[in-house]
Amino acid sequence: MSQDPLVIFTPSGKRGRFPAGTPVLTAARQLGVDLDSVCGGRGICSKCQVQPSYGEFSKHGVTVHEDALSDWNKVEARYDEKRGLKPGRRLGCQATILRDVVIDVPAESQVHKQVVRKRAEAHDIILNPTVRLAYIEVAEPDMHDPAGDLERVKAALAEQWDIPTVDADLHILGQLQPALRKGAWKITVALHQGNSDPAPRIMHLWPGFYDGTIYGIAVDLGSTTIAAHLCDLRTGAVTASSGIMNPQIRFGEDLMSRVSYAMMNETGAAEMTAAVREGMNTLFARISEEAGIETSLIMDAVFVCNPVMHHLFLGIDPYELGQAPFALATSGALRLMARDLDLSIHPAARTYILPCIAGHVGADAAAVALSEAPDKSEDLVLIVDVGTNAEIQLGNKTRVLACSSPTGPAFEGAQISSGQRAAPGAIERVEIDPVTKAPRFKVIGSDLWSTDAGFAEETAVTGITGICGSGIIEAIAEMRMAGIVDASGLIGSAEQTGTPLCIPDGRTHSYVLHDGRAEDGPLITVTNPDIRAIQMAKAALYAGARLLMDKMEVETVDRVVLAGAFGAHISPKHAMVLGMIPDAPLEKVTSAGNAAGTGARIALLNRDARGEIEETVGRIEKIETAIEPRFQEHFVNASAMPNAAEPFPLLRALVPLPDLSFNSGGGGDGAPTRRRRRAR
Amino acid sequence: MSQDPLVIFTPSGKRGRFPAGTPVLTAARQLGVDLDSVCGGRGICSKCQVQPSYGEFSKHGVTVHEDALSDWNKVEARYDEKRGLKPGRRLGCQATILRDVVIDVPAESQVHKQVVRKRAEAHDIILNPTVRLAYIEVAEPDMHDPAGDLERVKAALAEQWDIPTVDADLHILGQLQPALRKGAWKITVALHQGNSDPAPRIMHLWPGFYDGTIYGIAVDLGSTTIAAHLCDLRTGAVTASSGIMNPQIRFGEDLMSRVSYAMMNETGAAEMTAAVREGMNTLFARISEEAGIETSLIMDAVFVCNPVMHHLFLGIDPYELGQAPFALATSGALRLMARDLDLSIHPAARTYILPCIAGHVGADAAAVALSEAPDKSEDLVLIVDVGTNAEIQLGNKTRVLACSSPTGPAFEGAQISSGQRAAPGAIERVEIDPVTKAPRFKVIGSDLWSTDAGFAEETAVTGITGICGSGIIEAIAEMRMAGIVDASGLIGSAEQTGTPLCIPDGRTHSYVLHDGRAEDGPLITVTNPDIRAIQMAKAALYAGARLLMDKMEVETVDRVVLAGAFGAHISPKHAMVLGMIPDAPLEKVTSAGNAAGTGARIALLNRDARGEIEETVGRIEKIETAIEPRFQEHFVNASAMPNAAEPFPLLRALVPLPDLSFNSGGGGDGAPTRRRRRAR
Repeated sequence: MSQDPLVIFTPSGKRGRFPAGTPVLTAARQLGVDLDSVCGGRGICSKCQVQPSYGEFSKHGVTVHEDALSDWNKVEARYDEKRGLKPGRRLGCQATILRDVVIDVPAESQVHKQVVRKRAEAHDIILNPTVRLAYIEVAEPDMHDPAGDLERVKAALAEQWDIPTVDADLHILGQLQPALRKGAWKITVALHQGNSDPAPRIMHLWPGFYDGTIYGIAVDLGSTTIAAHLCDLRTGAVTASSGIMNPQIRFGEDLMSRVSYAMMNETGAAEMTAAVREGMNTLFARISEEAGIETSLIMDAVFVCNPVMHHLFLGIDPYELGQAPFALATSGALRLMARDLDLSIHPAARTYILPCIAGHVGADAAAVALSEAPDKSEDLVLIVDVGTNAEIQLGNKTRVLACSSPTGPAFEGAQISSGQRAAPGAIERVEIDPVTKAPRFKVIGSDLWSTDAGFAEETAVTGITGICGSGIIEAIAEMRMAGIVDASGLIGSAEQTGTPLCIPDGRTHSYVLHDGRAEDGPLITVTNPDIRAIQMAKAALYAGARLLMDKMEVETVDRVVLAGAFGAHISPKHAMVLGMIPDAPLEKVTSAGNAAGTGARIALLNRDARGEIEETVGRIEKIETAIEPRFQEHFVNASAMPNAAEPFPLLRALVPLPDLSFNSGGGGDGAPTRRRRRAR
Repeated sequence: MSQDPLVIFTPSGKRGRFPAGTPVLTAARQLGVDLDSVCGGRGICSKCQVQPSYGEFSKHGVTVHEDALSDWNKVEARYDEKRGLKPGRRLGCQATILRDVVIDVPAESQVHKQVVRKRAEAHDIILNPTVRLAYIEVAEPDMHDPAGDLERVKAALAEQWDIPTVDADLHILGQLQPALRKGAWKITVALHQGNSDPAPRIMHLWPGFYDGTIYGIAVDLGSTTIAAHLCDLRTGAVTASSGIMNPQIRFGEDLMSRVSYAMMNETGAAEMTAAVREGMNTLFARISEEAGIETSLIMDAVFVCNPVMHHLFLGIDPYELGQAPFALATSGALRLMARDLDLSIHPAARTYILPCIAGHVGADAAAVALSEAPDKSEDLVLIVDVGTNAEIQLGNKTRVLACSSPTGPAFEGAQISSGQRAAPGAIERVEIDPVTKAPRFKVIGSDLWSTDAGFAEETAVTGITGICGSGIIEAIAEMRMAGIVDASGLIGSAEQTGTPLCIPDGRTHSYVLHDGRAEDGPLITVTNPDIRAIQMAKAALYAGARLLMDKMEVETVDRVVLAGAFGAHISPKHAMVLGMIPDAPLEKVTSAGNAAGTGARIALLNRDARGEIEETVGRIEKIETAIEPRFQEHFVNASAMPNAAEPFPLLRALVPLPDLSFNSGGGGDGAPTRRRRRAR
């Protein structure tokens, strides 16, 4: 007796025997092969394209003959004529299995396709969004069986899509009857199912077959900027990215001033809530326009933010976050309707807000944890998200610790005499010749060094206006290596350093990076107070990291990940010269870019990632630096560059760190003391 | 070794042994005894009052000594002083078990207490509402364990109330922190859990212990009136009842004219949706004022209504209900937020709308089924809800059938020459002397017969203005029994009947009930077209019932229940003389009053009843009269009084039904034909 034909799917390797004449899609479904379909096998959507392979497959033990699949039928021919089928491709719902066959499911035909991330150590993204499309053919009403139209839609979803239980949003009830009749009892529904929902809900419908796509948006709500990625929920691709300034800035530059505004003004919190939601809608409108889509096609939104932004966005007064014990109203993940947050996207769009880790470690830190996956790391990774506050995570697959440290805004160029935001004209890279002690630099907007020919021409329009965050770090680190500043942070005099670029400045000295006064430009110097500000910021950052290392009982980490937009621009070597981060092999210090935004995108594209990060956050051990006695000790040690107590042997093997002290003369304001704690 | 003391709870009979010193409440909880508590055993709420019994209990095999329970403690003494404890009562959370004891849980101390219904055959009401109160003491925030305030509330509910999973509405997040601090980390929460919800949700909170109650509202949304019962969700009692005219009446008196308005006017359906929701809010405000409560204390609302009202209330265009196949947008039960229906009760109030049975048999009929429970009846019961349309159910515990029949508004006094709505001055009762053929009657507003002394004085203010629905039925039935009208519905002439009260009226005759013309009042007659209108209405009603009897393959029913406000006023004997309902023993014809309203109240007070009626409605067999061939035949037979084909032997044994025919002369418009089907 001859056996049924054998079908082997690649890349999954799933295999089974099916009676001759079984459609490929049917076989795939029965074997649990991840083969997409929106139309449910009716030859309409073409999402189930497959690629049969022919010949000898000794690995699989089969020979595939040319007649292994049925010939093209009319549906395939028509589709090829209208849209064009790639060579060798078949529609899985039309081609039937006749003899043993090996069938490849190309990436774009997989429902749960992998969205490319280049970094192997980071969390991968498997597409599995909360909203999916399903085309159904619905039974017409029958007086003998007076089920409502919705009940017949549910029956169709159960029968045609194996979805046993479905519910519908209220607005669907009013749209259903006209749509069913307009579509001649055929409709496409958008089904929303979050990771914790017992059953999907119909949130949108189209008469007939809907040939388009649907979108989701991943939003990183920062104190200064709101940045968003618009993602195609059918492919996982980023369709557009955009950002705006957070309109709350008019209530205060930093978080503490916004908390104060809420405390001082009865309607302050409500005003800031309205402002940030309005800003969101501005951003959604802009990003939709850039992508050329209707905002109503955005059906899911994921938000990450720090705790104060979290509370203000949700309409919660952030009062408690401004004082110990920094109690969050809620730390759990939230699933809300977009309309309850006054968001103008699809009227039934859902939102997901990642959990907060602690009163100072927000949903943005949770997103970093999702993106960088310290809890899945084989080696011990230190992740530093550098912003106005630093969120620090340390861990590996056995244990993850997290804390936040009040770095203040110095790393963003604030509190720096010539500091400015990263914008054209700002010095972002600095080198100082160890012999001549002369600097050269690059400014944003030009790739040339200041000593290169043509630099003046290239920077003529923007001018040379100040120093941004990454610039000041490089400048001070270079000054340290060149012997212009000592380990305690004092700038030497011209006599002490041997360069006239060290000029007196009150009771201390400053180092001239650029003198533009001849061309009516600024005199750009690094002053001793600038160095003090950076010292305090970096000491807070390092002390937080060192505290986590204490708790983990380790003296070194295997690798360091710098997250945040600023992290992307920091030079690892210079950061380490300053002692911002623990001593580590330089090649093990990498940038993750906007990891919080990436984490938001992962949670948007994969609903299971939501449950995963909720579970992870529950396991992360939170350390509150404010009440840890050793924090102060680490902070004091870390105010030296790189550190008064830690040897930094790996760094010292790479770069010169002259052992100088300029404290012999007068001046100097002593060791920096811990700054007043700021709400973050 | 001596055993632990034995505690026996009555009336449940649950018993168990507990170590001496165990509080009664603790023992009750461990045994699953239904003993209430809001404060969780802290001696605050006094809901756990119990009554120990002393002496010999041979039935239980125990002797209860005076020292079986601990002496009064301070908490009980203070409570007694402040509020007064009934003699013999103890607080279950304070009194501890020392020796064997029998403890009675009085009805008011039971959570799931029975709400009294007088009729044994109807559905009982066990209090088990969707909203409950729970007082909790919440852990203060701790920097070492930075869970949010909500997460610590959840932990308190898990620990103090054994509620493992809880969620919170968005608005709670903003209220939680101030409330916790105002209440010194003690709050009372209102938890909503519908019958299909996986977990309760916090929908309201009060700082400290909330000593008040909470409310729900059960609404019967009719085409003409909207009636509501405001119920105390802690006791099940009806606190207030009220009703208003449905403001949609301005768009059309009956349902078909409203469907037409929606079809003819683009915004018609939306206007009617807004009108009915506005009417609801008027009613809610009025009933709350009557009860002296804030509308925001109404936390749950249940609605029953016919399908057209259902769709208009939900914002669904009723277009499809105006034409075959009468497809409902949805027939299932609905769980919605009150705010999504624009209802001004508690901002987070929930609503429940009962399932519809079919396109003509709505959620109101489902509510009748819930109240009257034909599916639980041992004998075969016919339930008729008489209104503009009649919803008819026939069944017993093995099978239930349902249909709707287009009776039209004649039963409500419409289409009757002297007809009027039931209001003071309307004739509601009629008797005709079989010998003299003279009538006497009662009008609404007086208990006297028109032949009694003082009748003129009592009715002087209202006058005698017309005939209401129950009056016209009695009048025609009395005319039939007195030989004034024949079985075919023709009124005899003065000569044929022997009374000058039969007066010529065009080509037919009319019967004078009351001649008020001497006092500038109306001449109130029953005309032959009046009889035709009632004949058609009652024929439709009877034909529907008879059709169900055919389907059930029975010739008789065991009992008849008349539901609806009108049903409460129909005289069973007269209804049967007309042949409105099948022949049955008169004592087996009872009125259920507003059974739909009662059904709504059951669904409000007992969340499990919701699942029950959804399941029941799924099993009810729906018969569409419009497509049943025998309906027309039954209708024609039923146009005679009582019936041209059915013998009505039980009725004939009780009342005279003279065998006359007045058709010898001219006039008469032949047998009534089936009216055009109306949307119901």
